[in-house]
Amino acid sequence: MATRDLLNRTLDLIGPLDETVMKDARQRQDMLTKPQGSLGRLEAVSIQFAGIQGRLPPRIEEKAVIIMAGDHGILEEKFHNWPQEVTAQMVLNFLQGGAAINVLSRHVGARVVVVDMGVASPLDPHPRLVVRKVAPGTMNMTLGPAMSGDQAVKAVETGIELVTEEAAKGLDVVATGDMGIGNTSPSAAICATITGRSVPEVTGRGTGINVDQLGRKIEAIQRALALNKPDPRHPLDVLAKVGGFEIAGLVGVILGAAARRVAVILDGFISGAAALIATEMCPQAKGFLFPGHLSAEPGHRIMLDHMGLIPLLTLEMRLGEGTGAALAMTLVEASARILAEMATFAQAGVSEKRG
Amino acid sequence: MATRDLLNRTLDLIGPLDETVMKDARQRQDMLTKPQGSLGRLEAVSIQFAGIQGRLPPRIEEKAVIIMAGDHGILEEKFHNWPQEVTAQMVLNFLQGGAAINVLSRHVGARVVVVDMGVASPLDPHPRLVVRKVAPGTMNMTLGPAMSGDQAVKAVETGIELVTEEAAKGLDVVATGDMGIGNTSPSAAICATITGRSVPEVTGRGTGINVDQLGRKIEAIQRALALNKPDPRHPLDVLAKVGGFEIAGLVGVILGAAARRVAVILDGFISGAAALIATEMCPQAKGFLFPGHLSAEPGHRIMLDHMGLIPLLTLEMRLGEGTGAALAMTLVEASARILAEMATFAQAGVSEKRG
Repeated sequence: MATRDLLNRTLDLIGPLDETVMKDARQRQDMLTKPQGSLGRLEAVSIQFAGIQGRLPPRIEEKAVIIMAGDHGILEEKFHNWPQEVTAQMVLNFLQGGAAINVLSRHVGARVVVVDMGVASPLDPHPRLVVRKVAPGTMNMTLGPAMSGDQAVKAVETGIELVTEEAAKGLDVVATGDMGIGNTSPSAAICATITGRSVPEVTGRGTGINVDQLGRKIEAIQRALALNKPDPRHPLDVLAKVGGFEIAGLVGVILGAAARRVAVILDGFISGAAALIATEMCPQAKGFLFPGHLSAEPGHRIMLDHMGLIPLLTLEMRLGEGTGAALAMTLVEASARILAEMATFAQAGVSEKRG
Repeated sequence: MATRDLLNRTLDLIGPLDETVMKDARQRQDMLTKPQGSLGRLEAVSIQFAGIQGRLPPRIEEKAVIIMAGDHGILEEKFHNWPQEVTAQMVLNFLQGGAAINVLSRHVGARVVVVDMGVASPLDPHPRLVVRKVAPGTMNMTLGPAMSGDQAVKAVETGIELVTEEAAKGLDVVATGDMGIGNTSPSAAICATITGRSVPEVTGRGTGINVDQLGRKIEAIQRALALNKPDPRHPLDVLAKVGGFEIAGLVGVILGAAARRVAVILDGFISGAAALIATEMCPQAKGFLFPGHLSAEPGHRIMLDHMGLIPLLTLEMRLGEGTGAALAMTLVEASARILAEMATFAQAGVSEKRG
């Protein structure tokens, strides 16, 4: 049985935001040449970011998108549109630089880290592919747990290790990305379990299934929950019974980043499922999260509401890969540059508001 | 009397979007390695952008923010928090690179063009200040028209000339920016006149006035409308009677850009007032507009609804200067890069959706 040593040490390391630096950042915002509060959410983001890093201005030079890939046994239930081999094919596309996340990462100046957490199809070795395969896909959760408890711990600790390695290279902000045909189903199962909402409420059409397929998807998730009875008081139990290897890896990325005071930008529904698990394990981790965007997947808003997070972008995206998070990265960077580069009223010789 | 020659020629030049290129862009989006539609609004933006430029992929290399500054006679009504000299002081701040728009323009790689369209306070010559002062501030619109019809035409044509000069230097996308203490009042007056909504509905707290000041602001705008009776069927009449020189200049920027098939990213409430005038003069200009963000100023949503535009960002910003538009510029650029750089299913060897 896994020891959970790394996970426990990581949870212990996650602390509060730096209140002193946040107070200084708030004061700095109010001295800059603009009406107080007029940059809206950018101001709050800059202050939170300063509190995460514990320095004013916060720095944003090293950016990474970590894309975790895994396959899902629930594909046996056959309500899906895309064959399982697409997971591996898209991993290759990521490595060749042709996917949407590659374009958007180049656009925002972030490096891309591609991780095989549990891809089922064979993948040729590639110098930039990080292979940490826990197993070749999860088991079918309608017939039993998606993975063992040991596998769940191993996958989470793998995410912690990877983000720690990236932090050692230099990392100011990390975006969470995912790839896995079928992974909206485990994400919906996690959402229903943690938030207490019904399966139909949290289940959407993923990459574009029809009404008949949606009905079978809901029914399959309901069967999985009825059989496995994941316990919402034990997030690792939920993760093991109805999760996925890429989701578990992202739980580790979130916790490991928070432990090292690296800001996390969440992507959509799958990243949201990972964040639900991570913040149930450690509510204090919420302070380190920026919700990049609101996915078109209906359960995503329910997840964000549960965590008290308001998305930065609402562009009806539903691709995953970290695409929404990468786009939002540029907003977080802009907020930091405002704190670093704007002139104060005194510096610019601008009169302040009267009264 | 002004001839309106340049304005009329510009209106004649504004044509429809290129439907053939847009059809090709739609087909291209559907061949890229992602579920169809999964990039949400980014896909529609990229297609519109291709239709504006008439080429696939659209190019985005040369970016500019044009900030138009002007003062307002309505400051005599004394419900404002900031002294008039702040307009000139902020112009200097723009020239020195210390304002929010400078930071955000650097962040997105756009050049900044600062124009004195009608600043009241003295401004020392500066090599980068474009001086096209129509008059040192508008007249008090509660006592008569803000400007003459000739001044309105001159200001609009100045905007056309300036954006044409910028286009000659190279310009793929332009963001509209404004500076002018008191300029939410003329913008609210334009909004009420063009949309037919009541003054209290479209009037907000600008840079942060209190309830008492808001009451006096609403009352002053109502007096200005009752006295001047701007005719919503004649947008130039509305602009002259209750507008401002920076607003008129931005009307010209919008029309001049559309005539040269340059994409326009609108900032908030003041840019929205300019866009209302421009699109009433030429509804076809709407196709060339991307609404950068939704301002916290309540009338802005009413403006955007009237024009049928959905904002790209909703970050509770209310600063002006072009700040929301500059941030949105990076989204438009991202959408263009998706069309240019993503691999197709065939190129990447990725299986397509079944059925």
